[in-house]
Amino acid sequence: MNIKGFKFSAVEAAVKKPGRLDLGLIFSEVPAAVAGVFTTNKVKAAPVLLGMERMKNGLCQAVVVNSGNANACTGPQGIEDARETARLVAEGLGIPDEAVQVSSTGVIGQPLPMERLRRAIPALIEGLGTGTFDDVARAIMTTDTFPKIEARNGVAGGIPYSIAGIAKGAGMIMPNMATMLAFIVTDAAVEPAWLKKVFKEANDASFNVISVDGDTSTNDTALIMANGMAGNPQIKAGTPDADSFVLHLRDVLLALAKQIVKDGEGATKLVEITIKGARSGADAKRAAMAVANSLLVKTAFFGQDANWGRILAAVGYSGAEVDPDKAELFFDDVQMVKNGIFAGGDAEARGTEVLRKKEFAVTVNLKLGEGISTVYTSDLSYDYVKINADYRT
Amino acid sequence: MNIKGFKFSAVEAAVKKPGRLDLGLIFSEVPAAVAGVFTTNKVKAAPVLLGMERMKNGLCQAVVVNSGNANACTGPQGIEDARETARLVAEGLGIPDEAVQVSSTGVIGQPLPMERLRRAIPALIEGLGTGTFDDVARAIMTTDTFPKIEARNGVAGGIPYSIAGIAKGAGMIMPNMATMLAFIVTDAAVEPAWLKKVFKEANDASFNVISVDGDTSTNDTALIMANGMAGNPQIKAGTPDADSFVLHLRDVLLALAKQIVKDGEGATKLVEITIKGARSGADAKRAAMAVANSLLVKTAFFGQDANWGRILAAVGYSGAEVDPDKAELFFDDVQMVKNGIFAGGDAEARGTEVLRKKEFAVTVNLKLGEGISTVYTSDLSYDYVKINADYRT
Repeated sequence: MNIKGFKFSAVEAAVKKPGRLDLGLIFSEVPAAVAGVFTTNKVKAAPVLLGMERMKNGLCQAVVVNSGNANACTGPQGIEDARETARLVAEGLGIPDEAVQVSSTGVIGQPLPMERLRRAIPALIEGLGTGTFDDVARAIMTTDTFPKIEARNGVAGGIPYSIAGIAKGAGMIMPNMATMLAFIVTDAAVEPAWLKKVFKEANDASFNVISVDGDTSTNDTALIMANGMAGNPQIKAGTPDADSFVLHLRDVLLALAKQIVKDGEGATKLVEITIKGARSGADAKRAAMAVANSLLVKTAFFGQDANWGRILAAVGYSGAEVDPDKAELFFDDVQMVKNGIFAGGDAEARGTEVLRKKEFAVTVNLKLGEGISTVYTSDLSYDYVKINADYRT
Repeated sequence: MNIKGFKFSAVEAAVKKPGRLDLGLIFSEVPAAVAGVFTTNKVKAAPVLLGMERMKNGLCQAVVVNSGNANACTGPQGIEDARETARLVAEGLGIPDEAVQVSSTGVIGQPLPMERLRRAIPALIEGLGTGTFDDVARAIMTTDTFPKIEARNGVAGGIPYSIAGIAKGAGMIMPNMATMLAFIVTDAAVEPAWLKKVFKEANDASFNVISVDGDTSTNDTALIMANGMAGNPQIKAGTPDADSFVLHLRDVLLALAKQIVKDGEGATKLVEITIKGARSGADAKRAAMAVANSLLVKTAFFGQDANWGRILAAVGYSGAEVDPDKAELFFDDVQMVKNGIFAGGDAEARGTEVLRKKEFAVTVNLKLGEGISTVYTSDLSYDYVKINADYRT
């Protein structure tokens, strides 16, 4: 994958323990427009606080990210450690401090092992000649079982450009938290203010419509850097290629989001939940998230039990407007519920067949309006409990 | 247990399958004041809809309750079946139709097996001579592993009275749902309007501060009947014995609520979560429920992992006001967190000791105000998944 002007590197810093890549670097040869979306959790990790502050500059040239330690709940020392990490990278690269973003994922409440980071950063910078984006995708993995990477190619003003992204899972990540990290790079020239807007919207349509366990981490971060090295005329609102840029961006984010759900801790199924016919879009989203987060629904998916009653019950307590005598429910194209009651016939047998698949769709039509929302979820298995029962050891 | 004027009965109707008591009856020899609290789920089972309607009379003389079938998502036929069940019981007892409450718990979406109920109801009524409240507690069990029953004795105007209650679990109950049912009887004379008020408040302080899985069922119901047969001067607001009646009532409900948490599906721990120092009482409740419902927190409890970071993170996303640099966190009396960061010393070892207990307390002090709230929760174990993965078979 060649995204013009971007270089990558990853090394083993042994942040938590040795044996794997755990420190990654993304570098743009020229300052890039940057946009970011951060956790809404009121308890924010030090790198998130620093990142939100630096985001105001609108420019970024490097992202340094470690796994194995979240640098969260670490007080003033945590902020100091995040700043020092950025400073060491900036000095090594010969760029301003403020052009470096820092990101962390891992154990909460333990100080960053700065000695090890100080020792590893020179090699990290040196590795920029030979490293790959895939290496960085591996370095940010925690309980993820595979690296997550996606790319799309586009054209703007006749000039080709690329968008590529990596992510790590939201499945309540090893050792402590459901941290979701995503880093997107593009060599397209994009107007900074418009980039901010479309990146936020693309997040709402991808990382914000997945559910593995409903927890929001202290470290969740999604960043995009656009360095303009493709040489295209700047893409912004109203330009001919704006729509296709948005489509490519959303494709990359949604593909990463689905990979995250598939790799949810202990997950064996990827389920697309659609609520339609809701009184409003907000109602549809509320109902879809309630279904996606319901333990009863998720354990039934794991058990391959066509238990539509649990799904209707979750819709019922979601806060969305519901007329129980109108609802319809489908597993793929098999109608299980008509006018709020069991559809009868061979629905049970055919519905059970659908639930045996690795991927399937659940659709509820509330028949009250035009609101529609789709979210992606996984099932809840024994392994989820196993993975999360005893993590820090 | 002798609650004057109340009789009980339970039989095997084989609602779902034979082999156990599954149909219960509570009968008061005289019309009793009645109050009820019903599920807030917008998808309400037929007996809930009927019960809410009949509650308006303010009087009740019998409650008939079955397990094995929830009579939910059953459309107009479900309402007709609930009405017929009440009518058969009313005829057998020689009381008005409207004086009978019906309650159901079990599989969603299947019609009540009315043939079996019609056959069983005569024996049910006949059993009133010899049955016990404990029999009814057994008849309403689904995945519960033990019957839940509590009683307290009080005095009003020098006259002794009793309050007794039974309940079934909220742990997402066999076969389909997290149904919570509770039936309270007292021979005290209580003013109906005041009974309604204090029963609602007692529910808020007991069944509404427990969390097993966060799902709200289509059938949740708590009822109280007060028949006045003790012969005490009527208890109401401002009478000398009003406060002690409220205390006894809350004791019974809270004890039943704790039994429900202890018997949560697959539960191995009973954990008392207290948030104090919150900006408001509502903030405290919000934060406590977020902690109690967090899968990450509950799996850590199961793993006996003193993972305080997950608890602070849940508080952080609860919506409650939080200053991460002020928070304190305790496991029992072991301080794990001070000013938002790890308390150090031997806290890890001592905190882990606390988590090895079957029952312990988690206290978070947000140090922002006077808001305080306590909720009760269980851990999340392999068995929870096992019990819920494949239920209807």
